Amino acid sequence: MTSVALYDTTLRDGTQKEGLDLSVADKLHLAERLEQIGMTFVEGGFPGSNPKDARFFAEARERAFAAALTAFGSTARPGVPAADDLQLRSLVEAGTGVVTIFGKTAKSHVERVLRTAPEENLDRITESVAFLVGKGKRVIYDAEHFFDGYFEDRDYALACLAAAAEGGAEVLVLCDTNGGRMPWEIEEGVRAALEHGEVGVHLHDDGGCAVASSLQAVRAGATHVQGTLLGWGERCGNADLVAIAANLELKMDLPVLAEGGLAGLRDLARFAAELAGLRVPSGHPYVGRSAFAHKGGVHVSAIRRFPRAYEHVDPRAVGNRTRVVVSELSGRSNILAKAEELGLDAEGSEREVLELIKRREANGYAYEAAEASVALMLERRKEDHQPSFEVIDHHVSAGRRGDADGYAEATVKVTIEGETRHTAGEGCGPVAALDAALRKALLPARPELKDVRLSDYKVRIVDTHDGTDATTRVLIECARGTRRWRTVGASRNVVAASLEALVDGYEFGLRFTSSPGAGTQPLSPRRGLVDSPELPRQKRCRAQGADAAKRSKK
Amino acid sequence: MTSVALYDTTLRDGTQKEGLDLSVADKLHLAERLEQIGMTFVEGGFPGSNPKDARFFAEARERAFAAALTAFGSTARPGVPAADDLQLRSLVEAGTGVVTIFGKTAKSHVERVLRTAPEENLDRITESVAFLVGKGKRVIYDAEHFFDGYFEDRDYALACLAAAAEGGAEVLVLCDTNGGRMPWEIEEGVRAALEHGEVGVHLHDDGGCAVASSLQAVRAGATHVQGTLLGWGERCGNADLVAIAANLELKMDLPVLAEGGLAGLRDLARFAAELAGLRVPSGHPYVGRSAFAHKGGVHVSAIRRFPRAYEHVDPRAVGNRTRVVVSELSGRSNILAKAEELGLDAEGSEREVLELIKRREANGYAYEAAEASVALMLERRKEDHQPSFEVIDHHVSAGRRGDADGYAEATVKVTIEGETRHTAGEGCGPVAALDAALRKALLPARPELKDVRLSDYKVRIVDTHDGTDATTRVLIECARGTRRWRTVGASRNVVAASLEALVDGYEFGLRFTSSPGAGTQPLSPRRGLVDSPELPRQKRCRAQGADAAKRSKK
Repeated sequence: MTSVALYDTTLRDGTQKEGLDLSVADKLHLAERLEQIGMTFVEGGFPGSNPKDARFFAEARERAFAAALTAFGSTARPGVPAADDLQLRSLVEAGTGVVTIFGKTAKSHVERVLRTAPEENLDRITESVAFLVGKGKRVIYDAEHFFDGYFEDRDYALACLAAAAEGGAEVLVLCDTNGGRMPWEIEEGVRAALEHGEVGVHLHDDGGCAVASSLQAVRAGATHVQGTLLGWGERCGNADLVAIAANLELKMDLPVLAEGGLAGLRDLARFAAELAGLRVPSGHPYVGRSAFAHKGGVHVSAIRRFPRAYEHVDPRAVGNRTRVVVSELSGRSNILAKAEELGLDAEGSEREVLELIKRREANGYAYEAAEASVALMLERRKEDHQPSFEVIDHHVSAGRRGDADGYAEATVKVTIEGETRHTAGEGCGPVAALDAALRKALLPARPELKDVRLSDYKVRIVDTHDGTDATTRVLIECARGTRRWRTVGASRNVVAASLEALVDGYEFGLRFTSSPGAGTQPLSPRRGLVDSPELPRQKRCRAQGADAAKRSKK
Repeated sequence: MTSVALYDTTLRDGTQKEGLDLSVADKLHLAERLEQIGMTFVEGGFPGSNPKDARFFAEARERAFAAALTAFGSTARPGVPAADDLQLRSLVEAGTGVVTIFGKTAKSHVERVLRTAPEENLDRITESVAFLVGKGKRVIYDAEHFFDGYFEDRDYALACLAAAAEGGAEVLVLCDTNGGRMPWEIEEGVRAALEHGEVGVHLHDDGGCAVASSLQAVRAGATHVQGTLLGWGERCGNADLVAIAANLELKMDLPVLAEGGLAGLRDLARFAAELAGLRVPSGHPYVGRSAFAHKGGVHVSAIRRFPRAYEHVDPRAVGNRTRVVVSELSGRSNILAKAEELGLDAEGSEREVLELIKRREANGYAYEAAEASVALMLERRKEDHQPSFEVIDHHVSAGRRGDADGYAEATVKVTIEGETRHTAGEGCGPVAALDAALRKALLPARPELKDVRLSDYKVRIVDTHDGTDATTRVLIECARGTRRWRTVGASRNVVAASLEALVDGYEFGLRFTSSPGAGTQPLSPRRGLVDSPELPRQKRCRAQGADAAKRSKK
């Protein structure tokens, strides 16, 4: 099999995802990382469609990208000579060596959307590609709606490819623009297209098959695969280049990334997600946090006997790792494995910790997503353990009087470094108020906590095991730079549960993390705690309070 | 092509997902919905592995499930006669007509994990299946690690299938337990297995190909497909039955769900996610909120000219809808249909209600699971509407002083039937205290409320649409006899959100329900509100408070 080129379009098609927005600086940063890992092509944007992308290319020209940076656009508009089409000219001006243009391929789309004659469309394709080739560009041709067109009018769809080849296109990329074609249809289309030149695919995931279909396309002869990191993209997203790259290298023995690139896959995914204010889904193939997580004593003990018993590949191959999930289903081996993972010595206390975990889980705690609380449990078993601080008293108050704004305030009494501090804080809700009071008490003694941020907060009501009781469980995620950790609290009282998780969150931050070095990414503010103290809280409280007051009158 | 049976294992394999935990009541509720949509098999749990699943089957026996409810277990342990194996006996006792057992299929696993001789394993398989068949069960045989076994030692893997067939298994299910096999490998394994009987597949998604591979398996001759809702499951999850069902029906023309079931797919997915405290990923194929969302003017205008220009199927086929991201399309007819369903007249107010719903959903509400709040919205639009009561003021206070018990108390000021009542209540947490105070205020005037009980309470933190804000959403379920209804509240303050949902819950109870007749089901106390007033609260508060106090000393 010949070699396969990966073409990343995260910076352009990926940003079509709802809620995803990257600045020019973000794009440059990500383009560098994509090049480092060994993407053959990195599509930078659509300079003819928005000024931000044009700016990206202007700044990119100042840097030497090893990957082939490409600019994206479309064929010339009907009735306009290619040389006069502003959008084509913006592609030339982008200054990249490679340009990708898309054109219509399905006859019905030509007639009903483009509203031109099928023959005119063929001429536009050839002329547009030839124009760019004439300007010294390598041209990749994206045949929009190729598969829908192929199953509607096979001859016309193939004629579009022939037109692009005639103009001098280097690769003919077959797009499943609507994303609903099945793998066997992709395969059939690829085989038919091969007679017109080198073939690539650009698939969307509306049927949930884009990764598999991309691999099937390669088996059928495609040598170029387009996609995005983690499958970001419009609607259900694009084909996920993360899973595609790992499958091509590990399952099909086709090296597609740079030497050592595969081992950087997880870090790249996390980096991109951090930049985009999104997160890597925990179950994401290869790179998710849970992708190699094992629950339950049976699997864990099987893995100790036979490492690949429940893992399809060695997680280190993609920079990930085996994670033993500690829960009520655990055995002692889980605790020892977990302590090792955390760099702690659990020898001798693992039975005690396991029993504590089981007892607490029966009361509504859940430790599988709260590793920092497990670490603190191990830490607190040490003979010489001293807590960094202790909360002696706490009190919260919240409500609303008539049409006035709602209020929430809290007080805490804390001992820290031999002193007792009694502080007050306010917030939109009782938990935010409590957090504000706690930070006030801790910061003077431990100023490094200013780097620690609450980055997520989840509340669940859980049935406990005796079946007659219900408890509030709070999971908190804290962050310091790019490091994140999770803690848990549980109680019949949501305030007490939240305080417990907060205390663990700050204690872990003080004990097990250090300040981010210079040059680390600042945390995106997009996933703040419910009314986290940095946000302009007062204003928003008022808006919500007024709205709630109005509602209660209805 | 013959018909294909879908086998749902959300209740068992799905709950292996980290962070997913369903109560017995949740499982019964979800099993009913799975049966309604037309799953052929609904796997209820592993009665031999945990007492919760055994309880599920005990409660399920009291109900008539139309779907074949199945219990899951394994072959007898090496060296134990099938008739003496406790775990096999627990399967018989589960009382289902169908039983699924798994057994080892890969020779290396037999030797290194099971630590027995390959021939002994074959005997165990035949004997275990035959034992269950002898007890009158239909047996589905899950061949664990089939594909890994097949590519390691083809003859042995197939001998395991033959052994199960010999015992009387009805379907031979080929498992990709580690989830990393490629679609073409799945296809090859299915074709080879067909000579031993009817074949099914149970795939995991570690390579990101489980949906496509399941479909390829059907094309190769498999007639049974196992999976979970939304692909929940351990590590990267199981094959997603949502996408599989939609693809089989819409792309392969194979009806697999009940008449009309496909159109309920999105609702089922949302219901299950709400129950599990998870969310449907916005880009999930077919059922995600963004699955048919269009951003940007070009696509939108193309869609106006040619509706299927950028949609692979009609979203209504799966109960979803086209969403234009810039300017939300209206759905007045949805409101009218919903009003009809609730026996209300919405004519004339549907646009206003729709706009209110959209505005509130943008602020964190979710009406999908809170029909009672929608009913009240319609009701409150009536010119002659008078609320049954109004809450003017509320206040809650909660905390702990030193080693003392925690406390929570609340006051409310309510007008009801021309009077103003100012009452106080206490509870283990702020919400329970608020509920206690509210009931005290309402009961003297409306004694029928004593029949109304809070039966469930869920809290979620949600990101609102602008992505920089977070809100607490509270969903409350109330019950009166066997009638249940759900309401929603949202606010940045959990107390205010809870009060809003409580007010709707009691208002709906007063307005739309009547006292249960004799012979109705008493409510199970298992899913009470956090410290609902009927429970011996004081005692439990103390126990938890003491525990919490102890913990904070560690």
